[in-house]
Amino acid sequence: MFSTMRVVLSTQDIPKKWFNIVPYLPKPLEPPLDPRTMEPVDPSALLAIFPEPIVEQEVSQQEWIDIPQEVLDVYSLWRPTPLHRAKRLEEYLGTPAKIYYKNESVSPPGSHKPNTAVAQAYYNKISGVKRLTTETGAGQWGSSLAFACQFFGLECEVFMVRVSYNQKPFRRILMETWGAKVVPSPSNLTQSGRKFYEEDPEHPGSLGIAISEAIERAVSSPDTKYSLGSVLNHVLLHQTIIGLEAKKQMEMVGDYPDVIVGAVGGGSNFAGLSFPFLRDKLAGEKPNLEVIAVEPSACPTLTKGEYRYDYGDTAGLTPLIKMHTLGHDFVPPPIHAGGLRYHGDAPLVCLLYNEGFISASAYKQRDVFEAAVLFARTEGIVPAPESAHAIRKVIDIALECKRTGEKKTILFNLSGHGYFDLSAYNKFLKGELPDT
Amino acid sequence: MFSTMRVVLSTQDIPKKWFNIVPYLPKPLEPPLDPRTMEPVDPSALLAIFPEPIVEQEVSQQEWIDIPQEVLDVYSLWRPTPLHRAKRLEEYLGTPAKIYYKNESVSPPGSHKPNTAVAQAYYNKISGVKRLTTETGAGQWGSSLAFACQFFGLECEVFMVRVSYNQKPFRRILMETWGAKVVPSPSNLTQSGRKFYEEDPEHPGSLGIAISEAIERAVSSPDTKYSLGSVLNHVLLHQTIIGLEAKKQMEMVGDYPDVIVGAVGGGSNFAGLSFPFLRDKLAGEKPNLEVIAVEPSACPTLTKGEYRYDYGDTAGLTPLIKMHTLGHDFVPPPIHAGGLRYHGDAPLVCLLYNEGFISASAYKQRDVFEAAVLFARTEGIVPAPESAHAIRKVIDIALECKRTGEKKTILFNLSGHGYFDLSAYNKFLKGELPDT
Repeated sequence: MFSTMRVVLSTQDIPKKWFNIVPYLPKPLEPPLDPRTMEPVDPSALLAIFPEPIVEQEVSQQEWIDIPQEVLDVYSLWRPTPLHRAKRLEEYLGTPAKIYYKNESVSPPGSHKPNTAVAQAYYNKISGVKRLTTETGAGQWGSSLAFACQFFGLECEVFMVRVSYNQKPFRRILMETWGAKVVPSPSNLTQSGRKFYEEDPEHPGSLGIAISEAIERAVSSPDTKYSLGSVLNHVLLHQTIIGLEAKKQMEMVGDYPDVIVGAVGGGSNFAGLSFPFLRDKLAGEKPNLEVIAVEPSACPTLTKGEYRYDYGDTAGLTPLIKMHTLGHDFVPPPIHAGGLRYHGDAPLVCLLYNEGFISASAYKQRDVFEAAVLFARTEGIVPAPESAHAIRKVIDIALECKRTGEKKTILFNLSGHGYFDLSAYNKFLKGELPDT
Repeated sequence: MFSTMRVVLSTQDIPKKWFNIVPYLPKPLEPPLDPRTMEPVDPSALLAIFPEPIVEQEVSQQEWIDIPQEVLDVYSLWRPTPLHRAKRLEEYLGTPAKIYYKNESVSPPGSHKPNTAVAQAYYNKISGVKRLTTETGAGQWGSSLAFACQFFGLECEVFMVRVSYNQKPFRRILMETWGAKVVPSPSNLTQSGRKFYEEDPEHPGSLGIAISEAIERAVSSPDTKYSLGSVLNHVLLHQTIIGLEAKKQMEMVGDYPDVIVGAVGGGSNFAGLSFPFLRDKLAGEKPNLEVIAVEPSACPTLTKGEYRYDYGDTAGLTPLIKMHTLGHDFVPPPIHAGGLRYHGDAPLVCLLYNEGFISASAYKQRDVFEAAVLFARTEGIVPAPESAHAIRKVIDIALECKRTGEKKTILFNLSGHGYFDLSAYNKFLKGELPDT
C-alpha cells in the first residue's frame, strides 16, 4: 500500500517545455493600457524593466515554450517535486474522496516561487543584465529571487517593507545568506523612497512604495532590470511545470482529478497547477473538471472584486490591466497569509473566472488555520498559511463527499511550507488569532 | 549533464531492512555497567524505560533487521531522500575531486532524526505504550519525536531546556503544532525538576535536568516510556537507512566513495551514512576507504576525550558506557551547532575510532559558518550548523585534491537544513559570531 502514497518522477522525467494557455482561451486577453493615453501599451515599452525574452513570453501565442537547459539544470536541484496521496487525511475525515497534493514546499526557498525566479534570472543573465531588483513583503518572493540570482552570478537587490524587515528577520537573513542586498523600504536610494524616508527614517513602508523603489532602480540603470513574482503571463507560464508534472504523476497512478483547488494571491501557484488540466476542459475533453480558486475573506478579489481595468500596484505606476480588483488603493487587514494580500489577480485567471471555467471560494483565517493544523497532524507537513486556504476547501469538499457518497478525486497545490510562519500557528493554538 | 546532479530512487527502492554493524566489529562492544555494582547491566533492566523490541535491537547480533511495513509507510512521506552531486561547489573550488551529499534535510522536521523517531514510536505503539517522553535542547529531536508520535496516536511529552523554551520559540511551536506537550524544564511535574523549580521558577535548566525529568516520568508510569535520539545502538541501527540508500545511489552513478564525512554529536547521522560503507572496509573489501568524523573544537569528544567508562547523562543517572568522553560534567560553550554539544559519543562509533577504522577532525565555528555560507551560495541549500562541520572538512579535502591533483570521490551527510538557525547565520554575516 505505501508505495502509492508518494509518486516520484525520475530526474529525466522533468518536463522540457512550459505550457502556455493563451491559444486555448475562450476569448482574447484584453491588452494592458497606458494610463496617460488609455491606448494599449506597446510590448517594447516593457523593455525598460524586463529583458527581451521575458517580454516575448509575456505576449506569446505559442502553446509550448522550451525550458532552457540551464534552467532545467537548476530545477533539478529539487524538481520533479513529489505528488502525494493524503491517505491519512482521507482516513481521518472518513471520506470516500481521494485527495492528492502536489508538494512544492520541497524547494530550498520553501515554495513554488523559484520556478519563475530561476527562469527570470536566466533570461536576464543571457540578456546582459547585471542586477535584478524586486520588492518583497514577508520575504517569500525576495528569498526565491535571491536563491535564483546566485546560480547565474547576478546581483540581487530586494526592497523589503521596513515593518517586515524589522519584525520578521528570518527571511531577510535567508536572502543575505544567499548573497542578496536587502534594503529596508522606504530607503534613501530612490526618489520614490526618499520623500518618505526623509520625513521619517523609520517609516514602516508598504508594498506599493517598495515596488516603486524597485522599478525606479531598474529604469534608471542600464544594466539593472526588475523582476515580478506573480500576476503576469510569463510568471504563470513558468509555473505550469507544476501542473505538467502533476499530470504525468496522476497518469502513473491511473487517475485524473474531478476537482483542482489552489490558493490565489496573484494567481501563480493556482495557475501553475491548474492550467495544464484546464487545457483539457477548454479543449472540450474534460467538460466536467471543476477548478476552484480559494482566497481569504479579508482580500476577496475574485468573490467580491469588480472585473475592470486597474493599476497593478498601489501607487499607480504600472499600466492598467483588466482584472478582478478590489481597487488598487485597497489595504487588506494584516492576515498571516501575506502572499494572498493582493488587490487584484492575474489577468489570465480573471478571464477564465469571468468566462465560467473557474469558480472561487473565500475563507476566514481561523477556519484556514484549523485546516492547517489538521493537515500537519495527519499528513505530517506544516503548510504555509497561503496553501492552507486550499486545504480548507479540500476538506470541505471531502466532507461533502462523505455526506453524498461521491468518490471525487481532488488535487490541490501545497504551494509552500509554514516554517517561517510559526508565530501565526502559535497565535492560533493559543486562541489569539483574529478571525478576519 | 543535469540529470546526474540529483540521484533519485523510486519509492519502491526504499530499503526494507536496517543494517547492524555489530557482527563486523573487530572486537566486541564492552557492556554498559550498573553504577551501583559496576557489573554489566542486564538488558531486562532497560525494560523500565524502553519497550521490548527496542531492547532486543539494542543488543542484537543480527546483521539485517526488517523494517516494519508501518514504518516504511511513514518513511515514504519523504524517503528515499536524494543524493546530490555538488557540481557547483566543485566548480567554485576548482577541484578535481567529486563531491556527493546525501540530503536528509528534506524530511518534514528538517533532519535525519525522524528515521529513528518513527521507528521508536512504532515499536512503543505495538508494545502497548500510550505516551513517550523525551528531552530536547534547541528542539531538533523533540520536534522529530512529536512528528513521529502523531502517526501512531501516541502522546508525546517533551521536556525542553527552559532557556531554549523562552528564547527559541519556533521549534517549540512546531512540536505543539504536531500535537506534543512541551514542558519547560526544570518543571514541577517531577521530583528531579521540582527541587530546581521551587528554588527558582525561572531556572534556565540544562539538558541533564531535562533528561532526568523525562526518564523519571517514564519510570514512574506504566504506560509511559522514554525515547532517546542518538548514542544508543538501536538509534544508529535505524539511521543506517541513510547509508543503504546512498550505496544504491552511488551504484546508480557507477561510483564508490574514497572518503565519507559526517558531523558527530552523539554519532547517529554519522553512523547512519557511514556504517553500510564501513561494512565493506571491515570485511576487507574496501581497505582504503577513509571515514572521517567531524566535531566542534568547542566539544572535541573524539579528538581530545578519553576512551573510558562514563555516564551517558550529566546528572549521572544512566548506566556507565564505554566511550570517548570529555567527562559527564563537561559543559561546552554555547556554540550554534547545539546538536553537537554532547560530552560523549556513541559506543559503536568510539570503538571503531579507537580501533583505527574512523579518523576525526575538529573545527571552530567561524570556519564552519564560512563553509556553510559558501555551500548555500553554490549549492542553494542552507545547511544546519551541525551539517556544516562536515562541509568544512569536505571543502578542505577538495582543496587538498586541487593541490595534489587527486580525483577523490567524497560523500558527506547533509543531515539537516538551517532554517531554524538563521540567527546564527545573521551573527556570522555581521562578523559577530565568537570564534569558539
